[in-house]
Amino acid sequence: MTITSALNWRYATKRMNGTTIASQKLDVIMDAIALAPSSYGLQPYSVLIIEDKKLLEKIKPIAFNQPQITEASALIVFAAWETITKGQIANYIDQIAADRNVSLESLASEKTQIETLLKNKDADNLIWSAKQTYIALGIALVAAAEEKVDSTPMEGFDKTLLDELLHLKEKGLKSTVIMTLGYRDVANDYLANLPKVRRPKDQLFIRL
Amino acid sequence: MTITSALNWRYATKRMNGTTIASQKLDVIMDAIALAPSSYGLQPYSVLIIEDKKLLEKIKPIAFNQPQITEASALIVFAAWETITKGQIANYIDQIAADRNVSLESLASEKTQIETLLKNKDADNLIWSAKQTYIALGIALVAAAEEKVDSTPMEGFDKTLLDELLHLKEKGLKSTVIMTLGYRDVANDYLANLPKVRRPKDQLFIRL
Repeated sequence: MTITSALNWRYATKRMNGTTIASQKLDVIMDAIALAPSSYGLQPYSVLIIEDKKLLEKIKPIAFNQPQITEASALIVFAAWETITKGQIANYIDQIAADRNVSLESLASEKTQIETLLKNKDADNLIWSAKQTYIALGIALVAAAEEKVDSTPMEGFDKTLLDELLHLKEKGLKSTVIMTLGYRDVANDYLANLPKVRRPKDQLFIRL
Repeated sequence: MTITSALNWRYATKRMNGTTIASQKLDVIMDAIALAPSSYGLQPYSVLIIEDKKLLEKIKPIAFNQPQITEASALIVFAAWETITKGQIANYIDQIAADRNVSLESLASEKTQIETLLKNKDADNLIWSAKQTYIALGIALVAAAEEKVDSTPMEGFDKTLLDELLHLKEKGLKSTVIMTLGYRDVANDYLANLPKVRRPKDQLFIRL
C-alpha cells in the first residue's frame, strides 16, 4: 500500500471492535517508533505499550471515557523526559561510541553541543522533548495505516492522572500524547464512512 | 519498500548533491503532509515549499550555513499559526459542512469544543500548533524515505530571522521546524555510511 492510500484509508477511529492486533503487526509499528528520528538523535522519551485490559479500564475515565481506549488492542503512551540530565547525554554518547566503534574523545564536540540543552529551563526542554514524541507519533500513524491497523491519536486525557496511574513521575517521564491501536467498528463508528476533511492544498501550501 | 526498510535507509543527510527531485515524488510527499492528522483536524499551520535557489542562498546563513540547505532540491518550512482565531475555526467548520454535506447547526457542539482553544493563552496555543507540525514532519519523513528521497529535519536555524525573510509574521505564522529534500552526496557526507544509533528497545519501550 502506498503512503497516500494508507493515509487516505486511516481516520481517527472513534469505536474499535476489540480484535487483537497480530504481534508481527505490532512489532512493525514498534520498529517504526524505534527508528523515528529526533533532534540530536537523543530520543528524549519512552513509549509505553499497554495491552493489559484491567489497566485500560482504569485509563478510560482518565481519557474522558472515550470507548476506543478499552475497545483497542493496545494503547501507546508517548512520554517525554521530564528533565534532561548530564547522565542521559553521557549514556547517549557512550551508545554512539559503541555502535559506531569510535572513541569518546572524537565525540567531545557533539557532546558539548547536546549539553547546550542543559542551559535551557526544564520547562523549555520538556516542550522540546514533547515535540520529538510527535515525530514518533506521526511515524507510528503511518506504520499502523500501512499495516491496515486502525489508530486514534489522542490529546484528550488528563495528563496528571495518567502520569500518576502509570507511575511516570518516578521514571522521570511525562505523558504527551496517546494513540489507540485496533480495528474499526464500522457499524458503530459515525466517523467510519464520513469523507476526510482537510484544508485545500492552495491554502495549506505556499510555494516559493 | 516497507516502512521499516525505508526508515533504516534514511538518515539525517548532511550533504546533498544538488539533484532535483522529480515532481511526482515531491507531489507524494506534499500529499502525505496534506493528509497528516492534527488535533481536532484543524491543521493549524501552513507549509512552505521553497525551491528558489536565490532564496535558499539567503536561508543558508540563517541555518548556520548547513550546506544541505543549498544542495537540496527543496526546503520544507513548517510554520504554525501564531494565534488561533474565531475566524479560522469558523472556516474549518464551514469546510466540514461542505465536505460532508451536513448543516452548520449539526456541527455546533464540535465548534464549541474547538473554541475552548480560544481560552488558552496564545503562547500555549502556539506550542500546541507547533506540536501538530511535528506530526506532519514525521509523516513527511516517511513519505520521502519510501520515495527514496533523502531528507534532513532541522531545528538548527534562527526562527526570528527566517520568519522575517519569509514574511511569516504578516501571514500570522511562525516557523517551527524545517526539512531539506534531495539526494545524499555519499562521497562528502561523513554520516552516509555510519551505523544508525538508536536507544535499545528494552530502554525505549515499557510494556504493560
